Amino acid sequence: MRVGVVGGGQLGRMLGLAGLPLGLDFVFLDPSPEAPAAAVGEHIAAGFDEQPAIAELAARCDVVTYEFENVDVDSLVAAAGDTPVYPPPGALATAQDRRHEKLAFEAAGIPVAPWQTVDSREDLDAACRAIGLPLIVKTRRLGYDGKGQQRILTEADIPAAWEALGGVPLLAERLVAFDREVSVIGSRGADGTLACYPLTGNVHRGGILHTSCAPAADAGLQAPAEAHLRALVERLDYRGTIAVEFFVAAGRLLGNEFAPRVHNSGHWTIEGAACSQFENHLRAICGLPAGDCRARGHAGMLNLIGAMPAAAGILAVPDAHLHDYGKSPRPGRKLGHVTVVADSAEERDRCLARLEALVAAGNENHPL
Amino acid sequence: MRVGVVGGGQLGRMLGLAGLPLGLDFVFLDPSPEAPAAAVGEHIAAGFDEQPAIAELAARCDVVTYEFENVDVDSLVAAAGDTPVYPPPGALATAQDRRHEKLAFEAAGIPVAPWQTVDSREDLDAACRAIGLPLIVKTRRLGYDGKGQQRILTEADIPAAWEALGGVPLLAERLVAFDREVSVIGSRGADGTLACYPLTGNVHRGGILHTSCAPAADAGLQAPAEAHLRALVERLDYRGTIAVEFFVAAGRLLGNEFAPRVHNSGHWTIEGAACSQFENHLRAICGLPAGDCRARGHAGMLNLIGAMPAAAGILAVPDAHLHDYGKSPRPGRKLGHVTVVADSAEERDRCLARLEALVAAGNENHPL
Repeated sequence: MRVGVVGGGQLGRMLGLAGLPLGLDFVFLDPSPEAPAAAVGEHIAAGFDEQPAIAELAARCDVVTYEFENVDVDSLVAAAGDTPVYPPPGALATAQDRRHEKLAFEAAGIPVAPWQTVDSREDLDAACRAIGLPLIVKTRRLGYDGKGQQRILTEADIPAAWEALGGVPLLAERLVAFDREVSVIGSRGADGTLACYPLTGNVHRGGILHTSCAPAADAGLQAPAEAHLRALVERLDYRGTIAVEFFVAAGRLLGNEFAPRVHNSGHWTIEGAACSQFENHLRAICGLPAGDCRARGHAGMLNLIGAMPAAAGILAVPDAHLHDYGKSPRPGRKLGHVTVVADSAEERDRCLARLEALVAAGNENHPL
Repeated sequence: MRVGVVGGGQLGRMLGLAGLPLGLDFVFLDPSPEAPAAAVGEHIAAGFDEQPAIAELAARCDVVTYEFENVDVDSLVAAAGDTPVYPPPGALATAQDRRHEKLAFEAAGIPVAPWQTVDSREDLDAACRAIGLPLIVKTRRLGYDGKGQQRILTEADIPAAWEALGGVPLLAERLVAFDREVSVIGSRGADGTLACYPLTGNVHRGGILHTSCAPAADAGLQAPAEAHLRALVERLDYRGTIAVEFFVAAGRLLGNEFAPRVHNSGHWTIEGAACSQFENHLRAICGLPAGDCRARGHAGMLNLIGAMPAAAGILAVPDAHLHDYGKSPRPGRKLGHVTVVADSAEERDRCLARLEALVAAGNENHPL
């Protein structure tokens, strides 16, 4: 079976690494001549808006999926023709617009922070009054890794926020004083069965995921998180791997956003779970049974951003698994990650701390 | 770092899958236009005896290794020029000739069955008298998967054995009435440190490996097996992954043969150990520290030979991991393997039995 993937970054590369052993082969569509996924499949070097290239991808493959979210959904569906696209394009369209995303959360009964849309300076003033400060303003579309966001802590911040973001559809929401961030990742098969991984605890720095640990300390939140995920995937008629990010505030889950794809906070599943989020995504879209999502020990993942540390240092940490995406270094760019799997949460935290120190020391020598 | 691999079969493919996350990339030399490893690296389609092609491989790579054993060692060394070749070509030359292999075992203090070389019909008669029957005659070179072997159970079998094998250098050895077959796999780094996996119990059928289970039931044999392996790799000044196969007879280890490469009986390490034999081979030849060889649970591996079963059936078995090598089916050909990892040896055996039944049922529909 041949899988067409829109996007050829590290997520595509890890899909390929998971799928080759299943007997799948891959074609990736990505404009970059250095697409990391080209190491594990054929590469159509074309832009995401080049409909003939998407049509070629679909014509050559049995199923089309995506690892890059900012694709025009109507063009994708039209170009795919008779080739099925999973996850369903409707879920992608929902995730692409923060208003639709919030509405989907609400329709699935998932609590969210107070929010409203902002299309003018007057709307923004009104949102500040109605929701109250502090709040955060985000572009409704095309935001990622903390880009396209402005915080309004006091009224004095309003003009700068409007200056930075005004002119495109926005959404304002209460800035939640959360205790932690967690995500739940699951994979829904052709028969509607949902396989769900243990809750992951995430730490962001500068809007970019820094570390993930699983199973998260909040064991009591596993059941509500799974229930939320289940309600959402049923409404979206979902198929494939999905990630939902939550804030934990006063012991309660608040839906933040979802990604209709494999997700950075699920990279730990490669070594830390019996079957990874990548393999389960492929199993789901190819009509194969789901693999076991149970955690093996305590996993911790550290993103490698801006510069790659020396492999020898990383691999000297017991049970550290390096994932180098084969990308050229650039400030703020995700170049790889390291996962440790330990027998206890304490040992995992010690290993993660050692890795963080190694990476920080390396970055001092080679500044980001 | 770029790794050149002589051979582009399933072992090369699994080396590539293990090495891409380490930031390595690969060039494979293999005459087959359908080389399975071509999915994870560049492919030089040339014969193993084409010295200019080996020279090109070496010139393009930082280190050369091999996954195919029947290469002319002198040509390989000459063509590699300044590019280092690991495991050391001397170890490869030793493994290529059963006489040198036996001598290496003996020099390392590893017990072997009584043996002697056979170069004529008179030698064979003499060997039958000296060693006693039953014995087994093998070609000294180019044997694999039980090919190039004849059993002599009574004197009446001698003429047929000579007819089948005579004309090339042979070796006769006592046919050992062994209880079990086990193998020990280890990886020796640039600094001479040996990382050793738990002993693996192997079952062969028709001369081809059928199943492997690890850790093997013979926990008491781990220490002597490791000691034997250590003595051998030190004599061979070895670097990389190596496998030594033993017979277990009356509770004692008898060296059978060794492979200076990653080995079929170590495929379980992909999911069943913290760091696989493939990753550890690459770490060793690239000068990186060894990864953890400890077993995670109880692993069982089943080879898929001659025909591939339906993926959906295999993947419905809890914690079954499919490895499809992407090869065309052919009678007796290794097309893939399945590994299960369970919490107990009993559960592993149940899962393996279920997989064997699935495969047998599939093969009834599609005879080998």
